Amino acid sequence: MSDASVAPGLPNPADFARPPTASDLARWAEVDASARPARVTRLRARFESAGIDAYFGLRRENVRYLTGFVLGEGEERVAGTSGHFLISGADVLLLADSRYTVQATAQAPEARVVDGPRDLAPGWADLVASVGAKRVGVEAALLPYAVWRRLEAAAPDVELVPIEGWVEADRAIKEPAEIERVAAACAIADRALAGLLASIKPGATERDLALDLEWRMRTGGAEAVAFDPTCLVGPNAALPHGSPSAAEVRSGTVVLIDFGAQVDGYRSDMTRTLFVGEPSERDLAIYGLVARAQAAAVAQIEATIDGELGLPSGRDLHGIATRLIEADGRFPAFGHGLGHGIGLATHEQPLLSATALDSSLPSPTVFSVEPGIYVEGETGVRIEDLILLDADTGRVERLTKFPRDVFALPD
Amino acid sequence: MSDASVAPGLPNPADFARPPTASDLARWAEVDASARPARVTRLRARFESAGIDAYFGLRRENVRYLTGFVLGEGEERVAGTSGHFLISGADVLLLADSRYTVQATAQAPEARVVDGPRDLAPGWADLVASVGAKRVGVEAALLPYAVWRRLEAAAPDVELVPIEGWVEADRAIKEPAEIERVAAACAIADRALAGLLASIKPGATERDLALDLEWRMRTGGAEAVAFDPTCLVGPNAALPHGSPSAAEVRSGTVVLIDFGAQVDGYRSDMTRTLFVGEPSERDLAIYGLVARAQAAAVAQIEATIDGELGLPSGRDLHGIATRLIEADGRFPAFGHGLGHGIGLATHEQPLLSATALDSSLPSPTVFSVEPGIYVEGETGVRIEDLILLDADTGRVERLTKFPRDVFALPD
Repeated sequence: MSDASVAPGLPNPADFARPPTASDLARWAEVDASARPARVTRLRARFESAGIDAYFGLRRENVRYLTGFVLGEGEERVAGTSGHFLISGADVLLLADSRYTVQATAQAPEARVVDGPRDLAPGWADLVASVGAKRVGVEAALLPYAVWRRLEAAAPDVELVPIEGWVEADRAIKEPAEIERVAAACAIADRALAGLLASIKPGATERDLALDLEWRMRTGGAEAVAFDPTCLVGPNAALPHGSPSAAEVRSGTVVLIDFGAQVDGYRSDMTRTLFVGEPSERDLAIYGLVARAQAAAVAQIEATIDGELGLPSGRDLHGIATRLIEADGRFPAFGHGLGHGIGLATHEQPLLSATALDSSLPSPTVFSVEPGIYVEGETGVRIEDLILLDADTGRVERLTKFPRDVFALPD
Repeated sequence: MSDASVAPGLPNPADFARPPTASDLARWAEVDASARPARVTRLRARFESAGIDAYFGLRRENVRYLTGFVLGEGEERVAGTSGHFLISGADVLLLADSRYTVQATAQAPEARVVDGPRDLAPGWADLVASVGAKRVGVEAALLPYAVWRRLEAAAPDVELVPIEGWVEADRAIKEPAEIERVAAACAIADRALAGLLASIKPGATERDLALDLEWRMRTGGAEAVAFDPTCLVGPNAALPHGSPSAAEVRSGTVVLIDFGAQVDGYRSDMTRTLFVGEPSERDLAIYGLVARAQAAAVAQIEATIDGELGLPSGRDLHGIATRLIEADGRFPAFGHGLGHGIGLATHEQPLLSATALDSSLPSPTVFSVEPGIYVEGETGVRIEDLILLDADTGRVERLTKFPRDVFALPD
């Protein structure tokens, strides 16, 4: 098998789609508003199986998905109970304190906005009674134990039923306008990286490059970054997790960049590993192997999308990529998962990993495929793209358009 | 009582302290390392009262405070159980998965770094047994209900005891090097705002200004922002919470800017309300009243710091500020709390509000004092400074140095 070789030309920002316009944003807002009733209906359809008559949620992504109310990343910490919601068979209640009332009313016109108290417990019995509920499903992976106990004590007649993963499973299946926004976020990231290339040269620090890249996304159409960009040079790239430091780009070594943009709530996530100066033969061998591991996982999806055996599981795909690296035998396979779903959250269902569900992937869905090889103290390579999978149309598409060639930047 | 009047000159970035140097950062790292044993000892001293023999924590700020391990804001979402910790009478265990092992070992040399599994439950009994614990205090305001139940089921012999507020109460009392970092974060924010003034003119959007301000902080010595900067113009300033929009600065109206920087983990938080063009008489009246409400709260601290009656409570101070506005009678008093402690978290103990504890403020401590007046659909004014209170030295100091004068920027 041949190792990778250096590509002739570099990408330009103009190679990628332009950022969304105000009219795109207006259209998405309309589409979301018309999609929300069906989302709520899907949630309610699960009530009977769990014997509940209402659902109490607080996950930031879920309140946006079901009601339209937007909290920024991390804003839950200061929002108190604003953004918590209670959905019964007939009602959608959205909690919002005085700071959020205007916003909640505008963003969630289908919901009844009620006061979001600092402490839920004192008004809990009345809140639940106002929708006539007796058994309330609660997002148990989110609600802290201490709060759960206070709600139980505040309304002993109301039974709390722990629920996990319902809305998360629904969110894994993407609507067309959700996919459009993930793709738009991908294009903003692609453009930003293409624009950054000229700054990646010996002497530039990881921190400088990460900040420059973030700035390019945020002035290039992203409303936010999907997460703090990671930029790791040389041996630092062997840390699968790592924060940008004052380490400088050096000739002949790798620059691993993992980053994403956010468009109207929806995120992208991509990783490219670039070279400054001539890559070593070992690094080219590693790059080629990572690229083949990624291609093998994507090829498996393409091969099964029309078949009778059904879609592969996240566990299957993880195994295909890791086994390819292990079979080669020269370098250690990655210890992290192969990928993850993405949408309103950077990491969501479906997961692609050794411990992921052994059931077929959902469809239509979007997830990352991001194999890597990390040689401690020496070098690291990861290549990450977002893949759209739509079994109904037989579509398997890379939403990340930045090429996966070996790029050797001038030193 | 006279209303406010316009100040003659504008602040310059050079008016404020310079950002910290690499040697400051190195010194803080050393001081933290030497402070951690005493912090852990204070935690252990509480074990007996609750009848526990170990403490299991997961709050991001607490793991940093007690062990030195650093997670970025929101990184808990992707870190899994990395950063969770278990402290017994003799041991400090820090969980870290393979992504975080190198970092954990370097940042938390006093801790024993153990594998941070994806799912806590399977290894929970062994983990607890490894420190010989039987009754484990757990941060119940953080641990989700679903996880709590899985831990109970995984080790029925181990009793879980809900604990809230222990480390948070300790963190409210600030060490000198913690105060230095909050002050350094304040100075970076002061400089950034002074640098932004020239860009605040008719036509600039809220979003442009917020991004510009963030950029100034992050290239001016801040490792991060304390939270997404808020910039609200004209009637938007009446929303006590509000996100920057495409609304433009207009002559004769207010620009309310609420923002903060982060230095070595420690945050600042300040609000200034500026004018573009000549302020209206009403806005000057509001500004003067808000400034007096803030001054009255600070004066009360100064008046009591040496007295025999002890320090005021957060509730007392909130009441002093709100009553002053109510007594004036022309405008509605703010509905939010007067202030909050700040340190590793933007919002922490002590709270200053109508529902805050009725006990004396801790000391030494740092908190915001941020009264406001909001006239819906018309205008809003808030002035927020960080105050250092140290009863032992009789010191009451504004760490926010940007003047509180009325600044009318050229239109």
